[in-house]
Amino acid sequence: MRVAVLGVGLMGGSVALAARRREGVRVLGWDRDPAAVEQALAAGVIDDVAPGIPAIGAFAPDVVVVAVPLAALTATVAAACAAVAGTEAIVTDVGSTKAEVVAAAPTEVFVGGHPLAGAETAGVAHARADLFDGATWYLTPTAASSGVGYERLHRFVTSLGAAPVAIDAAAHDRLMAAVSHLPHVLANVMVQQAAAALGGETLPATGPSFRDATRVAGANPLLWGQIYAANAAAIGVQLDETIAALQDVRGRLHDLEAWQAEAQQLRRALLEVGFDGGPQQELRVSVPNVPGVVADLALTLGHAGINISDMSLAPSPDRQTGEVGLWVAAADAERARQLITAKDLPVT
Amino acid sequence: MRVAVLGVGLMGGSVALAARRREGVRVLGWDRDPAAVEQALAAGVIDDVAPGIPAIGAFAPDVVVVAVPLAALTATVAAACAAVAGTEAIVTDVGSTKAEVVAAAPTEVFVGGHPLAGAETAGVAHARADLFDGATWYLTPTAASSGVGYERLHRFVTSLGAAPVAIDAAAHDRLMAAVSHLPHVLANVMVQQAAAALGGETLPATGPSFRDATRVAGANPLLWGQIYAANAAAIGVQLDETIAALQDVRGRLHDLEAWQAEAQQLRRALLEVGFDGGPQQELRVSVPNVPGVVADLALTLGHAGINISDMSLAPSPDRQTGEVGLWVAAADAERARQLITAKDLPVT
Repeated sequence: MRVAVLGVGLMGGSVALAARRREGVRVLGWDRDPAAVEQALAAGVIDDVAPGIPAIGAFAPDVVVVAVPLAALTATVAAACAAVAGTEAIVTDVGSTKAEVVAAAPTEVFVGGHPLAGAETAGVAHARADLFDGATWYLTPTAASSGVGYERLHRFVTSLGAAPVAIDAAAHDRLMAAVSHLPHVLANVMVQQAAAALGGETLPATGPSFRDATRVAGANPLLWGQIYAANAAAIGVQLDETIAALQDVRGRLHDLEAWQAEAQQLRRALLEVGFDGGPQQELRVSVPNVPGVVADLALTLGHAGINISDMSLAPSPDRQTGEVGLWVAAADAERARQLITAKDLPVT
Repeated sequence: MRVAVLGVGLMGGSVALAARRREGVRVLGWDRDPAAVEQALAAGVIDDVAPGIPAIGAFAPDVVVVAVPLAALTATVAAACAAVAGTEAIVTDVGSTKAEVVAAAPTEVFVGGHPLAGAETAGVAHARADLFDGATWYLTPTAASSGVGYERLHRFVTSLGAAPVAIDAAAHDRLMAAVSHLPHVLANVMVQQAAAALGGETLPATGPSFRDATRVAGANPLLWGQIYAANAAAIGVQLDETIAALQDVRGRLHDLEAWQAEAQQLRRALLEVGFDGGPQQELRVSVPNVPGVVADLALTLGHAGINISDMSLAPSPDRQTGEVGLWVAAADAERARQLITAKDLPVT
């Protein structure tokens, strides 16, 4: 198996490392930044360096993975498709939006992709062979896609440790607009509203809700500026619906208890059973925040074989006490509750 | 010092416990629910039970703290003020919104209050003597407030472990609308948009951003229905500004990089220097999520005397690897980075 990776950063580097876990895989790397690709070679992330995109044709790759920034994606995919034209190579990408690149690329050579993995951190230094283990990896074939090429790509994504899921490119972009892009826009707006309301005063210690709600505010401006642009149509629809929802709420602020309860049901339905790995349940624990309490909780559950899939620590304003939220498998929840209660910590 | 607490739940019970840490303080409790107040007496949270609000006058309290739900607040404050009319008692409350109750109560007897502490959990069983330690506790005196009464209330709040901060009631409500009430509304909207976009499919494993963004969605419908209603005017202004901001963004989705960068700056300014306890810095650590890694990180920093003031754990979809966000004092950040790097874990 021969793989060409165009763009050797966190994502491209992790594709290379994940692919090379298997015997007989060779990875050729190219990057717009010669220093980045030399760093990847020196670190053993890739086997060889391509001097330019046209040179990947001579490497005779089975799969070409384009992992460049969204703004350069369409042009790089076009160059990659041209470089391997007439060969059996299948070209794919890892961009966060799909409709634009799929519409621009030749469908017989290219199938779009989007692994739901990554991190705020960037750069090949953070690349990891296990980045995609267990991750959903969307693939966006069209009715005209080559069956042979798609099958090879499906096997390749599986070999990286991920779970390929076929989805229409437009449906993918609508879904991401709702569960990822809209939340990023709203986080920014919340930060701006708070800054305006504070007028230069310091933020009062309102607990963790504001921090959680705005955790992604201002995330990587270069990346997100490109995501908003690439998915403008689907985000526009989400914004229209959000504006309509806010106008509705605006008109009945004295009558929102049922609306709040409905949101509670929806969140439970989405989060408690929605993740891979089966139903999850959240335990909230009131803790004295003395050094070691959180570690002790984690160790206690760890020793009992109970995995903490998500954790939040909500310190009191003096940071001496607080509330810890722990998400565990529903099947483990009662056992976790007993272990924690045995430490005289109240659980709800 | 004699304190009457009306409404003995999480907040009222914690006021009682915090006050009784000091010698010579006696606490009289009343609750609409006779079982709750008997439970509080049996648990040693209060010293005595008042059979009704009028009976608190005979107790000759120095301070009366009204800690009932918002929907009952104005009526209960009025009854408390009537019960202690003609005495030296000062009456206050712990409600999340202030303009309504302040406007309705007699200003010579009543000064509004709002401690920034609490938890999603409710009920006297979760009451803690240290709930208010270090917390900002807003007080909303007016120009007509009794100086003697305000000074006593200030000392009382300080004795509970909190830091009293005087603020105009309307300014308080505007501030809370921006940093707390609006984020709750938007969390609900995000959950509804996601549910609609998914159309019954399970939520893809998009990482923790959606979970963080919607953590408060549907929080306690009874409480929040009352908060939205009580602060409808200020929340309405925030919603109008949010709608305008979203319409602006809607019009320039292809040109948002600078807007994203501005949000990044604003968030840093708000969060990294805004909390009590001095400047904070976030470290992001890529970790294999084997049992014990998070605990090991927490223990390592704890042993070095470095306090983790906020923590987020972003698992990869298979829950085997992930990224941990740790907020520590800026002065400790470099030392923390060295300790973590020494474990071969990449930090940014």
